[in-house]
Amino acid sequence: MTDRVVALLGDGLVGPDAPLLRIDDLGVLRGDGVFETVLVVDGVAVEFEAHLARLARSAAMLELPAPDPASWRVCAQTVVDAWDGGREMTLRLVLTRGPESGGPPTGYAMGAPLSPTLLAQRRQGVAVVTLTRGTVPDLAAQAPWLLLGAKTLSYATNMAALRHAERLGAQDVVFTASDGTVLEGPTSTVVVARGGTLCTPPEELGILPGTTQAALFRGAEAAGWPTRVQRLTVPDLLAADGVWLCSSVRLVTPVHTLDGRSLPDTGLTPRLLDLLPLPAVIGR
Amino acid sequence: MTDRVVALLGDGLVGPDAPLLRIDDLGVLRGDGVFETVLVVDGVAVEFEAHLARLARSAAMLELPAPDPASWRVCAQTVVDAWDGGREMTLRLVLTRGPESGGPPTGYAMGAPLSPTLLAQRRQGVAVVTLTRGTVPDLAAQAPWLLLGAKTLSYATNMAALRHAERLGAQDVVFTASDGTVLEGPTSTVVVARGGTLCTPPEELGILPGTTQAALFRGAEAAGWPTRVQRLTVPDLLAADGVWLCSSVRLVTPVHTLDGRSLPDTGLTPRLLDLLPLPAVIGR
Repeated sequence: MTDRVVALLGDGLVGPDAPLLRIDDLGVLRGDGVFETVLVVDGVAVEFEAHLARLARSAAMLELPAPDPASWRVCAQTVVDAWDGGREMTLRLVLTRGPESGGPPTGYAMGAPLSPTLLAQRRQGVAVVTLTRGTVPDLAAQAPWLLLGAKTLSYATNMAALRHAERLGAQDVVFTASDGTVLEGPTSTVVVARGGTLCTPPEELGILPGTTQAALFRGAEAAGWPTRVQRLTVPDLLAADGVWLCSSVRLVTPVHTLDGRSLPDTGLTPRLLDLLPLPAVIGR
Repeated sequence: MTDRVVALLGDGLVGPDAPLLRIDDLGVLRGDGVFETVLVVDGVAVEFEAHLARLARSAAMLELPAPDPASWRVCAQTVVDAWDGGREMTLRLVLTRGPESGGPPTGYAMGAPLSPTLLAQRRQGVAVVTLTRGTVPDLAAQAPWLLLGAKTLSYATNMAALRHAERLGAQDVVFTASDGTVLEGPTSTVVVARGGTLCTPPEELGILPGTTQAALFRGAEAAGWPTRVQRLTVPDLLAADGVWLCSSVRLVTPVHTLDGRSLPDTGLTPRLLDLLPLPAVIGR
């Protein structure tokens, strides 16, 4: 079984354990780059074009050269074709500003097995704590240098928030703005069901537009299930008919506990999974 | 002349242009690590122990294994000894969480020539714009997951702020909190002279404790020049007898223009340089 598959952009497969990055790559020196995480099922990269579009959007926010879609498709497909590690694979696309001493951006795709923890959480759900991101809401448009809503490699605080949640006995986090407005998870989008409507917070709060949330809402609308983009508070989450963390790999993972309070399981998770563009068996 | 010198922690000199980092190093995938930038003059790493202490402090905030001071001294000295590129060198210490697929943290020291831009700015000063960091003040203690005051590799927003400043015709930035409180520069500490006293904002605002600012204040106190740690606003900067951005490499770079308004040059910069623990010729 393949443990990990790596292809360099514009090149091809490389040994996954070999050192491949220069020590002065701005991806490591400054967290200066962007990425995407894509779920691959049975050789199909789910919502790949949406991920590629978001990679380009993030790159533009960081003033990186626009990623060439054709090259990225080839690079990703190279990894997908070389994978023999099971039906599902996590595919990461990474684009950095390249070496500080000069040279083109660094790009690569990396395939790896799904985290067993995330796989278990898909079924069992997660306990979540709300943590402040410390920012006032509605900054994204007026303060572009904060890169709010860009998927950058500068994820140290997202990782620290997850460690903090673990210390509190939880598995994940929902960030809030300084006024309590619900934002997003460190690596997920928040979706709630309220009175038969699926709701998610608006992008203008400075959050990443979710590819999985978007696919879910498309599926919901096609199935006649109303959706709404609206601001939410923590009390809204506690009062909802269901709260989910959505992302490519965790799909729609139910939140069973929020800040120590149990949330109801109204049996909606399988129905939401059915709305995603996936083989029916995945996620169950 | 040596362009760049690299030594791996616990190992030794390596070719600076060879690929040395694994592609799944969490330093690049998540900006998950810490660093220091040290000025080396005539083979002496200025304030090295203070930088090492701050590296350890940042590592603790990220829950990285505590850096071994002896190993880092050896690693840094290896780079310093191999340098033949001039009197001054920028020495970077980088510590990442290591490969995602497992293994020890990644550590290395890298020596490089000083940026000609920063060298020129030492003498000519800089035009600065104030930009909001978007955060409410006084979060550092209550929200440790925000890593405020840690020198992490997740510097994408700091770099974006500098690009934004350039677009506005400036060369550097002073970040402010959402209430206008002066915080710090993207890679510097703010120091002002007011009525014969040197002032700098307090760490509890969630800013990096400056090694250069600390050395400056030690020198000032020894010379009988009063210092104070206090909150500052942008009007305070505009009314000051002098504003400087302090960091290891830029030393005490004067701010000659703030948000488009000229600041007075009261001739204090050479006096401040004299307070730093440096050969007298450096920085002039």
